Amino acid sequence: MVNHFQRGGSSCQSCKSDSSGASNSGGESSKESSRCSTPVLDADRSDRLRDKMRRRTESGDHWFSLEFFPPRTASGAVNLISRFDRMGSGGPLFIDITWHPAGDPGSDKETSSMMIASTAINYCGLETVLHLTCCNQTKDKIIGHLAKAKHLGLKNIMALRGDPVEAEWEEEEGGFNYAVDLVKCIRSDFDDYFDICVAGYPTGHPEAQSYDKDLRHLKEKVDAGADFVISQLFFRADTFLKFLDDCREIGITCPILPGIFPIQGYQSLRQLVKLSKLEVPLEIMEVIEPIKDNDAAIRNYGIHQAVEMCRVLLDSGKVPGLHFYTLNREVATIEVLRQLGLWTEDPRRPLPWAVSAHPKRKVEDVRPIFWASRPKSYIYRTQDWDEFPNGRWGNSSSPAFGELNDYYLFYLKSKSPKEALLQMWSEELVNEESVFEIFTCYITGQPNRSGHKVMCLPWNDESLAPETNLLKDELEKVNRRGVLTINSQPSINGKASTDPIVGWGPAGGYVFQKAYLEFFTSSENVNALLKVLKKYEPRVNYHIVNVHGHNLTNAPDFQPNAVTWGIFPGREIVQPTVVDPVSFMYWKDEAFTLWIEQWAKLYEDESPSRMIIKYIYDNYFLVNLVDNDFPLENCLWQVIDDMFELRDAPPEPFNDTTVAENP
Amino acid sequence: MVNHFQRGGSSCQSCKSDSSGASNSGGESSKESSRCSTPVLDADRSDRLRDKMRRRTESGDHWFSLEFFPPRTASGAVNLISRFDRMGSGGPLFIDITWHPAGDPGSDKETSSMMIASTAINYCGLETVLHLTCCNQTKDKIIGHLAKAKHLGLKNIMALRGDPVEAEWEEEEGGFNYAVDLVKCIRSDFDDYFDICVAGYPTGHPEAQSYDKDLRHLKEKVDAGADFVISQLFFRADTFLKFLDDCREIGITCPILPGIFPIQGYQSLRQLVKLSKLEVPLEIMEVIEPIKDNDAAIRNYGIHQAVEMCRVLLDSGKVPGLHFYTLNREVATIEVLRQLGLWTEDPRRPLPWAVSAHPKRKVEDVRPIFWASRPKSYIYRTQDWDEFPNGRWGNSSSPAFGELNDYYLFYLKSKSPKEALLQMWSEELVNEESVFEIFTCYITGQPNRSGHKVMCLPWNDESLAPETNLLKDELEKVNRRGVLTINSQPSINGKASTDPIVGWGPAGGYVFQKAYLEFFTSSENVNALLKVLKKYEPRVNYHIVNVHGHNLTNAPDFQPNAVTWGIFPGREIVQPTVVDPVSFMYWKDEAFTLWIEQWAKLYEDESPSRMIIKYIYDNYFLVNLVDNDFPLENCLWQVIDDMFELRDAPPEPFNDTTVAENP
Repeated sequence: MVNHFQRGGSSCQSCKSDSSGASNSGGESSKESSRCSTPVLDADRSDRLRDKMRRRTESGDHWFSLEFFPPRTASGAVNLISRFDRMGSGGPLFIDITWHPAGDPGSDKETSSMMIASTAINYCGLETVLHLTCCNQTKDKIIGHLAKAKHLGLKNIMALRGDPVEAEWEEEEGGFNYAVDLVKCIRSDFDDYFDICVAGYPTGHPEAQSYDKDLRHLKEKVDAGADFVISQLFFRADTFLKFLDDCREIGITCPILPGIFPIQGYQSLRQLVKLSKLEVPLEIMEVIEPIKDNDAAIRNYGIHQAVEMCRVLLDSGKVPGLHFYTLNREVATIEVLRQLGLWTEDPRRPLPWAVSAHPKRKVEDVRPIFWASRPKSYIYRTQDWDEFPNGRWGNSSSPAFGELNDYYLFYLKSKSPKEALLQMWSEELVNEESVFEIFTCYITGQPNRSGHKVMCLPWNDESLAPETNLLKDELEKVNRRGVLTINSQPSINGKASTDPIVGWGPAGGYVFQKAYLEFFTSSENVNALLKVLKKYEPRVNYHIVNVHGHNLTNAPDFQPNAVTWGIFPGREIVQPTVVDPVSFMYWKDEAFTLWIEQWAKLYEDESPSRMIIKYIYDNYFLVNLVDNDFPLENCLWQVIDDMFELRDAPPEPFNDTTVAENP
Repeated sequence: MVNHFQRGGSSCQSCKSDSSGASNSGGESSKESSRCSTPVLDADRSDRLRDKMRRRTESGDHWFSLEFFPPRTASGAVNLISRFDRMGSGGPLFIDITWHPAGDPGSDKETSSMMIASTAINYCGLETVLHLTCCNQTKDKIIGHLAKAKHLGLKNIMALRGDPVEAEWEEEEGGFNYAVDLVKCIRSDFDDYFDICVAGYPTGHPEAQSYDKDLRHLKEKVDAGADFVISQLFFRADTFLKFLDDCREIGITCPILPGIFPIQGYQSLRQLVKLSKLEVPLEIMEVIEPIKDNDAAIRNYGIHQAVEMCRVLLDSGKVPGLHFYTLNREVATIEVLRQLGLWTEDPRRPLPWAVSAHPKRKVEDVRPIFWASRPKSYIYRTQDWDEFPNGRWGNSSSPAFGELNDYYLFYLKSKSPKEALLQMWSEELVNEESVFEIFTCYITGQPNRSGHKVMCLPWNDESLAPETNLLKDELEKVNRRGVLTINSQPSINGKASTDPIVGWGPAGGYVFQKAYLEFFTSSENVNALLKVLKKYEPRVNYHIVNVHGHNLTNAPDFQPNAVTWGIFPGREIVQPTVVDPVSFMYWKDEAFTLWIEQWAKLYEDESPSRMIIKYIYDNYFLVNLVDNDFPLENCLWQVIDDMFELRDAPPEPFNDTTVAENP
């Protein structure tokens, strides 16, 4: 690609910020450069949905989107959010959340459409479309919903009429009678802020007077400002392709996405068909009826049927992307996408951590490493920041972290029920060593004493990252001896940015890391460690803190230490994770609290098990170590070995007086 | 070093930004962190002079400072500024510029005390003390000088009475009669902004009633707010040591620097002694008188005498630093400092380019590579920026570069007279190849056709940097063929930050570079180059522009490309130089203008030589190339080879239509 860039002329094609006339070198200053301030976030991330869609369509690249409905219970919400994370990893262009009028959809309840959509964009980093229905609603209420959605970072609305409350529906004068009224309202009150999607009916809306009339309604909605159309489900590719041609015929030029419904069961099919007043074609009924009691067979057929239909659509050359009605299930949709080759098993990560999709956080590209396993907690605690660190932590970061309040904890707490946690983390702890064992089992994947695998820890909701696996043997050894690790990364000296385990960012770059190790350990160990660390100055930086807030560190000037960075063709340096002394103090509060809130409270008050965890909470230190010499072999294991050796050496009089105080 | 850092308590020792009380994790946000926002600029750089002095004294590290007087002519100013650069490289803690009442010292003239001090701090990056005398001046005038000094970035004032205009001086009621009045005025009108130095007289001020009375005057000046004292010159160590003890005796506790005057010649000694009403000790006169006509012998003796005296002072343990009266000469002072081991031959560079000492630019740590050989021009053209790039270029840089106006050009233009330039760059150019030859001679160090060495070029005021020497052979080859290089750097993949040639920043780090090459070349070459570059996507980024402003580039999203960066223990990443598409357009105006202003104008109007340079100016392109693959062998020479090969190949029909337009 060759960009032509001309100052002082009329042919400036790419740089809006510099069209300041014929002056030799005194061009006007402008901070609103068209340049992206976060170098590794491709233009795709900063674009709005309609632009992404256009760009993907122009590139000939097929894509998909996923529809979900809000859950009914809080635990359902936790599950759905995990599903967002899993299905988000396949690379959908967007997801959409239906509006559930009976479920108080605009409220702050954890199960509301609004909150689920907000979580998807803010915490799961997914481009999200929120449905909104207007039937039987006042304009004030609608405007309120839209303003709230905007405030939460949502930029896309699916404008629908919705089902009338009364069986027989009547037009209301001056009210919202059709989706087109909602589209007009969004455009008049919010200008061009939202991207708007509307529904299209390949066989005509069930209440429409005719297919043609319904097409004209669709045209009206698009003319009123809708950016793209998602179709109602259908069972034959031809149905959609004819609809598409008819739309083009009457001048609807925007993207029209086919709504794909993989048949997943006999009952759900019947229910959906009834609701949407669709007819299932005979050839499908003939296959399904005989196997209607065999769920697996129906699902397999559903997958097969959807794949065949999607292939016809994609091969037509008229359909750049597919929209899936998931019914909040994973298996069938993922399988269809896999067979179509649309599921991206290992999508390129723009940064080592998942980027939030909130427009305000768009430029964010530096985070403290501490929250690596608790990114949602980090996002929650920093949601009120006015600006996010970009390029450098020390510059623009605000040290004010919000509290983790109870209400939101449901997003962040363990997904496992109490019984499962007790099985994993021991029904009864005998001593500190029982705790060492649990940590060791988590690392090794071996079952614990009572035969249960330890799948998570309070600080790690998922099993070990592939990267951490590289350190498994060493981690096992130190955990067994009471160095209770909760976060670590190996050193990396310039691996390809496309490396499947440690790579991130655009292709053609190189990624680097300093070795990092974070753990809880006893004050006895810390006393030995502090002496040992003197030998490793200035190679190793450390922070050592107990729950009471006594931080021992050798960080120069309390500066952050970059521990992950990347070098890319034609870009500035990116350093997405740092060890920051100030945020570490907020993190230690959270990290210590997890001992009590997630572990100790599993046991009875005053029970020995609870007292053991409480003892650790009160007496252990949280330690982090960075080996600055990334090109050499990681020395942190040697540091720990030296610490054990000194601790276990026969007592000798030391002249050194640096001792960790233990208030 | 172990820093204790406690949140939510009263024992916070190091972090001013976080003393927000007992709240668990809701500490107040504060942007005024005590953390340095430019990671590699040690605390030393951000401190004020008195703090630096205190820290150096506490560390037991001896240091020195240098006094200069303003020049009488503009060419004298150019020479003095070069001297600042050379003597600055030895690592003085500060320099000071005397106030020259007869020379319109507060004016904007290039020879004024004010302008010379401003140049030292802004363009040479030296901590600078400006002298100021108050005798026979109105308060308004004094305040005006101080306000101007503050505006220019000066933070240190040497407060003096100055010599009265009349031979017999009388106190003026309510006026400035003594230096103490000036000290008081600075403190009352500028609070604590300035660090203040005052003069001490080891043998008493010549006009003082007694030595004791003079000591008491000194005490008054210090009590009024002076931060340190510089002594008048003296010839015996004992004289100063007694004075020091006497000062301590009466309670003067601030630093008192001995003023060292290496005897450099018989006449200058006599003159100075007469002015300062000092007596030269007999033992010195006895040595000097017999050799008074032998300048070299006197200078050698002066060096010897100064070294001996300084050794006694330093060995006393009471003198942490030495102040030198240089008389604007280099040799003697540098030799004394070398013999004392105080001259730092290769001071650690905090960044690859010289950092300005203006307080406003303190955080600056990113610059475009284009001005690498013209840093003063860059500083001048960006002096009005409100903020300077820190951490990332794209974020805080303003693309508005100031014009290079005629007045300031004297700082920036060649130091050589026209005749020398003509000898170097040829009395008469025959064709473009004559120009190629000049460039080639500059690279090789070989004399040109008329036997003169080419010591500089319009774009390079100095001879080749040691780093560029690494590329000498390749540079010679391409210049010979019309690739007229003006800037280049080799690729570096993690060399020690202490490397004598390419190292910078704190010890224990690693520095990196992407290979860079910048040159002028013909449109014929550019046509071939553009075709060749397609083979090197995305490995090589390029910008190609002619004087009329047509920029051809493959820079993604017009983003800057970091080409120098460093990784240091306990620090964020630093990327001090970038290739920035927007600033490149300002640079090309400057780079093309130099052809005309510095080279073409050496020749008669309409002369063939002038027409040749004018032809190059009108028709050549300025090209820069970056090889992004820094761990591999630099491919830019191969790119140039391929370009020559394609250019020289027998004409064949190319399907490719990308051709550089040449308006």
